[in-house]
Amino acid sequence: MLLERLQERIPADRLQLDPAVTASYAHDEAEWAPHGTPLVLVRPRTAEEVQEVVRACIEHGVPVVPRGAGTGLSGGANAIDGCVVLSTEAMTSIAEIDPVERLAVVQPGVVNDHLRSACAEHGLWYPPDPASSPWSTIGGNVATNAGGLCCVKYGVTADYVLGLQVVTGTGELVRLGRRTAKGVAGYDLARLLVGSEGTLGVITEVTLRLRPQRPPERTVAGYFSSVVDAGRAVTAVGAAGIVPSALELVDRHCLEAVDQWKKMDLAVEAEVILLARCDVPGAAGDDEADAIRDCFEQAGATWAARSTDQDEADALFAARRLAYPALERLGPVLTEDVCVPKAAVPEMLARIEAIGKRHATLIANIAHAGDGNLHPLLITPRGDDAARVRAQRAFEEIIDEAIALGGTVTGEHGIGLLKRDGLVQELPAAVLDLHRAVKAALDPHGILNPGKVIAAPADGGAPGPADRG
Amino acid sequence: MLLERLQERIPADRLQLDPAVTASYAHDEAEWAPHGTPLVLVRPRTAEEVQEVVRACIEHGVPVVPRGAGTGLSGGANAIDGCVVLSTEAMTSIAEIDPVERLAVVQPGVVNDHLRSACAEHGLWYPPDPASSPWSTIGGNVATNAGGLCCVKYGVTADYVLGLQVVTGTGELVRLGRRTAKGVAGYDLARLLVGSEGTLGVITEVTLRLRPQRPPERTVAGYFSSVVDAGRAVTAVGAAGIVPSALELVDRHCLEAVDQWKKMDLAVEAEVILLARCDVPGAAGDDEADAIRDCFEQAGATWAARSTDQDEADALFAARRLAYPALERLGPVLTEDVCVPKAAVPEMLARIEAIGKRHATLIANIAHAGDGNLHPLLITPRGDDAARVRAQRAFEEIIDEAIALGGTVTGEHGIGLLKRDGLVQELPAAVLDLHRAVKAALDPHGILNPGKVIAAPADGGAPGPADRG
Repeated sequence: MLLERLQERIPADRLQLDPAVTASYAHDEAEWAPHGTPLVLVRPRTAEEVQEVVRACIEHGVPVVPRGAGTGLSGGANAIDGCVVLSTEAMTSIAEIDPVERLAVVQPGVVNDHLRSACAEHGLWYPPDPASSPWSTIGGNVATNAGGLCCVKYGVTADYVLGLQVVTGTGELVRLGRRTAKGVAGYDLARLLVGSEGTLGVITEVTLRLRPQRPPERTVAGYFSSVVDAGRAVTAVGAAGIVPSALELVDRHCLEAVDQWKKMDLAVEAEVILLARCDVPGAAGDDEADAIRDCFEQAGATWAARSTDQDEADALFAARRLAYPALERLGPVLTEDVCVPKAAVPEMLARIEAIGKRHATLIANIAHAGDGNLHPLLITPRGDDAARVRAQRAFEEIIDEAIALGGTVTGEHGIGLLKRDGLVQELPAAVLDLHRAVKAALDPHGILNPGKVIAAPADGGAPGPADRG
Repeated sequence: MLLERLQERIPADRLQLDPAVTASYAHDEAEWAPHGTPLVLVRPRTAEEVQEVVRACIEHGVPVVPRGAGTGLSGGANAIDGCVVLSTEAMTSIAEIDPVERLAVVQPGVVNDHLRSACAEHGLWYPPDPASSPWSTIGGNVATNAGGLCCVKYGVTADYVLGLQVVTGTGELVRLGRRTAKGVAGYDLARLLVGSEGTLGVITEVTLRLRPQRPPERTVAGYFSSVVDAGRAVTAVGAAGIVPSALELVDRHCLEAVDQWKKMDLAVEAEVILLARCDVPGAAGDDEADAIRDCFEQAGATWAARSTDQDEADALFAARRLAYPALERLGPVLTEDVCVPKAAVPEMLARIEAIGKRHATLIANIAHAGDGNLHPLLITPRGDDAARVRAQRAFEEIIDEAIALGGTVTGEHGIGLLKRDGLVQELPAAVLDLHRAVKAALDPHGILNPGKVIAAPADGGAPGPADRG
C-alpha cells in the first residue's frame, strides 16, 4: 500500500526495491551498530518529492530513515525493518553562492568538498571539514552537526547554518531560520534541527554562512614519546591564549597504518605527533606559530618545528584524514568520540591507555586535540569474538571516564544508536524528558527516524512528555 | 494563596508587594508596548529559589514573567495582570572564569560590562556588546539573544552560550548544553532556550564561551551626505570580502541629540557617519583599514580617514552607544530593529527615508550596518496623539518593506509584544504551528511568560500543536 502510493506520487526511477541495492543502504559506517532491512530505498530529487515520501509514511505509519552519504559513525542512518530509506544523494544542486551576503544555498546531497571547491571559485570558504569531507554530504553534516579539523578556531557545522528548508513530522514543507546576518524572529528551530539526526524533520535545502578565503596556513609539528606529554602540550597551547586553526593528534598506530596502505614514507620517529596550524596573517602569525612550537617543547616534545616544507606538512595532514580508513583495513574498528575539557586531555589520554591495557585491546588515537575531542579507535582482529567483547567493555569504560572528567559521550559523531545508552548515562532523567517532549511535539506520528538519539516509546522508552513538576 | 506559598518557601526579603515598587518592574523600555500590573515582585538569589517560584506558579496557575535589567525594547519583560515578576537582579555572582577552557559560569543577573571587566582581568574577552552593556544583564542578553556592535565579526550572544541551568515549565532544575568545546549529545536545547524570551524556561545560570583578548582596534570614519550613499559603502565593504570588527551607521539626528545632552563637541559636518573598526593584527590590519577607507570613498564619502586620534574615535563610538537614550530625551521613541540582506541596505535606508516623509515622522537612524541590522528610531513629540498614530503606521510600513526585501522583523531586540504581529507576518502558518508545538511541549502549564513571542491560546491564538499533515 505504501509502495503503491509512492509509485503513484513520485517518478519510478526514484524508487529502488532490489534487495541487493537496498542492503547497501541499510547502515552507515558504524561497524557495531545494529540495523534492519528496509522496505524500499527512495532517492528523491526535489523537496516536493521528499514531502510526498514523508506524507506517505505518515499515512501508512511507516518509519522514514533519512541518510546522506552514509559515512556516519554512530548508526544514525541505520535502517529499521520495513522502513523507507530516504537517500538525498540525488539532490546535488548548488542553487546559489552569494559573495556579498557570504552565503550558499544548497540541496542536502551536495558533497562537502564539492561545496568547498565551488565556494573557493568565489573567493569564499565553507569551514566545516569533517575527515569524511570528500564523501559526506552537507545534509548529513547538518543532521549530525559534523565537526572537523577547523573547529578549534572556526566552530562546527551548526555555526554555519543560517536556514533550512525541511519537511516536518506533519508533512509540511517549511523554511526555518533566515538569510540575513542576524535575526531573532521566533524560536531557533533551524538550530534545533541541526544535529537532530533526522528525528525532527527531513532536510531538503540548507542556507549556509560562508567566510572570506583566508591566508595560507603555517604548520607546526611536534613529536612526543607519550600521549600524555602530547596532551600536556595541548593544554599548554590553550593556557597560552593561543587559538590555532587546527590542533590534531595522531599516534604511531595511525601513521603506520596509513603508511602501509598509501606508502607515504612518513618515517615517523615518535609515539605521537601533534600537528598545529595557524592562519593569522603576517608577522603576528609567525609569532603565533613560534609560540605553539614553544608550548610543544615545554611540554616535553622530543622534536618540534615549524614546517618549511609545504608538501611534508600536507602529507602529515593527509595522513591524519586517512587514519580511519587505514585502520579499518586492519579489522573492525569501534570508533570513540568523547570530548573532555582541554585541561583534562592528558588525564583522559592516560586513562584510555590504561583501559586498552586492561582489556588487551589495541587502541589507536586520533584527536581534534585542541577541542578535547578524542577519537580512540578500538581495533579487533577479524572474527575474534572474545576480542570484540573486550573492546566493547573498553568502549564503555572510555565513556565512563569521559563523563567522570566532565566530558561528553559524543563530540561530533552524534548519538545514533551507538551512544544511546551513553546519552542516558550523561543526561539526567528530567533532560531526557525534555528530549521526549520535543520529539513528540515535532514528530507526532513517530515516523521520523524513530529510535535514533532517544529510544522510541515502543522500544521501552518513557512514553511522552512527563510532568515531573 | 500563591503569596502564602511564596512566603512559606522563600525568604521574606526576596518578596516585594509595594505597588510603588512593583510598578517600576511592570515593563521594559519598549515605550509603546502594553503592560499589566504584577501581583508580586520576587528577587531570588539562588536557582533553588527560582525553582520554588516556578513551582508555586505552576501549582496556582499564575504566570511568571522573568526579567533582567528591563532594558529590552520589545516588551518581552512586560507584566501581565496578576503575574509574578521574577527579577534576576540579585543573582550577580560570577562563579568561575577559566582561562584554559576559556569559559565563564555566571548567575543571570551579572551585568554585561561587569562580566567583560572580570574577563579582561584574566586576559579574556566576552564579545557580545549590546549598546545596553553598562546596564543589561547576561540573563536578559541570553533570553533575547542580544546582539551588539561586535556581531559583524564575532556573532551574537547565542554564539557564546555553551550551557544553561534553567527551571523548566514543569518545575525541574536542569542543566542544558555543556562545558566542553564541542558536543552533540542530544538536541541543542540550550540553543533553543536562547532567545526564547522566558517562554520556555527560566535561566538560573549561564556557561559562556570566551575568547582571548584581542589586539587594539583601528577606527575608520566616513562622512556621507545621504543615508543611501552610506548604505552603498556598507555593501561595498561586504563585496570586498572585508570583515570589520564593527561597522556602525549613525545619522545627524543621533549625533546632534548626543551632543546636546553630553556636550561632546562632535561638530559633525555630515548627514551620516559610518564608523568601522578593524582588529586584525599588524600590517594586515593596516591594509584592511585602508581597504575600508577606499570602500567609503568609492561609495561617495565626502570625507573618510583612519582615525589617528584614539580619543576622537572613542568619542564617536560612545556617541553611537548613547544615541538611544539621547533621543529619548526628545520624546517617546518607537525603536525599529529590522535586518535585511547586506546588498539591500541602501534600498532599505531609502525606503525608510521615504516612509518618514510620507508620514511626517522624524526618523533618526542608527544601524549595525555591516550586518544589515537597522534601528530606525521614530520620535514623536510628547502628548501629540496624531503624531503617534502616524509613527505607528510608519513603524508597520518599515516592517513591510524589510520583509519585502528578504529581511526579518527583528535582528536582535526580539519579538516580545511589539513584534508579535510582525512575526505572524514573517512566518508562514506551518512554522507558527511548530512554535506553538514547542511552546506547548516545554511549557505544558502555560505559565512561562505567556503571550510573549506567540499569542497565548487564551489571547485567541491557535490552540496547541496542529497537525496539518
